[in-house]
Amino acid sequence: MALWPTTMRELLLIGIGTGNPDHVTGEAIKALQSADLVLIPRKGPNKDDLADLRRSICDVVLTDPVPQIVEFDLPKRRAEGDYIDAVEDWHDAIARAWTQAAGTEAARVALLIWGDPSLYDSSLRIAERLSPTPKVRVIPGITSVQALTAAHAIPVNTLAAPFTVTTGRRLRADGWPEGAETVVVMLDAGGAYEVLNGADYDIWWGAYLGMDNQILEAGPLDEAGPRISAVRKTAREAHGWIMDCYLIRPRNPAP
Amino acid sequence: MALWPTTMRELLLIGIGTGNPDHVTGEAIKALQSADLVLIPRKGPNKDDLADLRRSICDVVLTDPVPQIVEFDLPKRRAEGDYIDAVEDWHDAIARAWTQAAGTEAARVALLIWGDPSLYDSSLRIAERLSPTPKVRVIPGITSVQALTAAHAIPVNTLAAPFTVTTGRRLRADGWPEGAETVVVMLDAGGAYEVLNGADYDIWWGAYLGMDNQILEAGPLDEAGPRISAVRKTAREAHGWIMDCYLIRPRNPAP
Repeated sequence: MALWPTTMRELLLIGIGTGNPDHVTGEAIKALQSADLVLIPRKGPNKDDLADLRRSICDVVLTDPVPQIVEFDLPKRRAEGDYIDAVEDWHDAIARAWTQAAGTEAARVALLIWGDPSLYDSSLRIAERLSPTPKVRVIPGITSVQALTAAHAIPVNTLAAPFTVTTGRRLRADGWPEGAETVVVMLDAGGAYEVLNGADYDIWWGAYLGMDNQILEAGPLDEAGPRISAVRKTAREAHGWIMDCYLIRPRNPAP
Repeated sequence: MALWPTTMRELLLIGIGTGNPDHVTGEAIKALQSADLVLIPRKGPNKDDLADLRRSICDVVLTDPVPQIVEFDLPKRRAEGDYIDAVEDWHDAIARAWTQAAGTEAARVALLIWGDPSLYDSSLRIAERLSPTPKVRVIPGITSVQALTAAHAIPVNTLAAPFTVTTGRRLRADGWPEGAETVVVMLDAGGAYEVLNGADYDIWWGAYLGMDNQILEAGPLDEAGPRISAVRKTAREAHGWIMDCYLIRPRNPAP
């Protein structure tokens, strides 16, 4: 882990929900407004919808005096080699990009975080690479899991029962988590549910959740799984990118 | 499961976060404003802080014309007998209380749901008892889990790893979920972490999260657990009620 010198004394990690400006909370608006500088990552030509959404949220919610808004190119994670090592190096590179983009004037810097800064987001770990460590303030935001269950009007848990949230990578590697009654899968590069026996599960899936182009599918996994894989492929080609997540439960849970 | 006749055609389950009006999203405000009638449960003399908070959120966010606001006494769940049976009967009683309080005029009825309507909340299951079934619309809200991780500025997951959300009842009954890397515990009537070997875990705890009287504690479970139990007892006696949740991780997770 490399350390990058910074003049920022306070870092605001502001959850903004899933791209619907109506997801933004009053707390997030106040925090954003209080910043000296807002950092907006550019993820490359196929993902600039996301930079556009962050800019449009700033346009909608900010009032004068508007903080300085600075865009920067998000470094890319290398695809080869050990996954965790590649992530650690990537976080080093992002920390450097933050400090370069923030410059030497801004004391209170804000980042607009997709969903919630505490859920499968690396900003808290990247912030540990800044020196001296700024005070970090986290403002929670609506996650894609919440947008998924809201859109399907389902509870995330069965009655008084636990649930597990995992990644596509881990579902594919480990299969159904031992004893789990509900599993929510995030960050799936596509089709990790194929490792499950489709006749045994039901799935509720959503992509572009909370956005105008939201897509929903649900049903028995053996029927809905192949349909989701096809819909996902088409949508990804049409938009150039996709963000999706899903919830799976055993079809006939053990009593 | 009993069915209760109703004239409501649409039921809005609106997540409001954990009592901080700044948690409320733009989507929640618009949904609330669009209702004909807002139902506010009274939970009895020791929990009327919560009815007060719902009323104060209505006062802060609603503009003219303000929907009709109707309070009703929330039925109590019986403490004896089988837990799941008691919950089913309780949900029947709440469905009846909703229909009685909503009357026969309102077509679009709103309920302000603590946290998020999809997370350990029974409103979706209670709504199934209305006849004919109204269209249910869910508006997500910030949960106490998100308020907890934001207040401690920690991620809910370790790097690219799964986490499990469970109840105090289940942690006490089943112990540490097999293979779990992080466990979040909700709805604990108190001290379910006592079933764990305190030397093996770290805990991050919070009560009245997001509210003015928020309390946070964290540390090695063997040191922090007894401290939390004492703080919780004192705070519960002082306020007449408590809502809290916590996150636990193995202190030296297996590599």
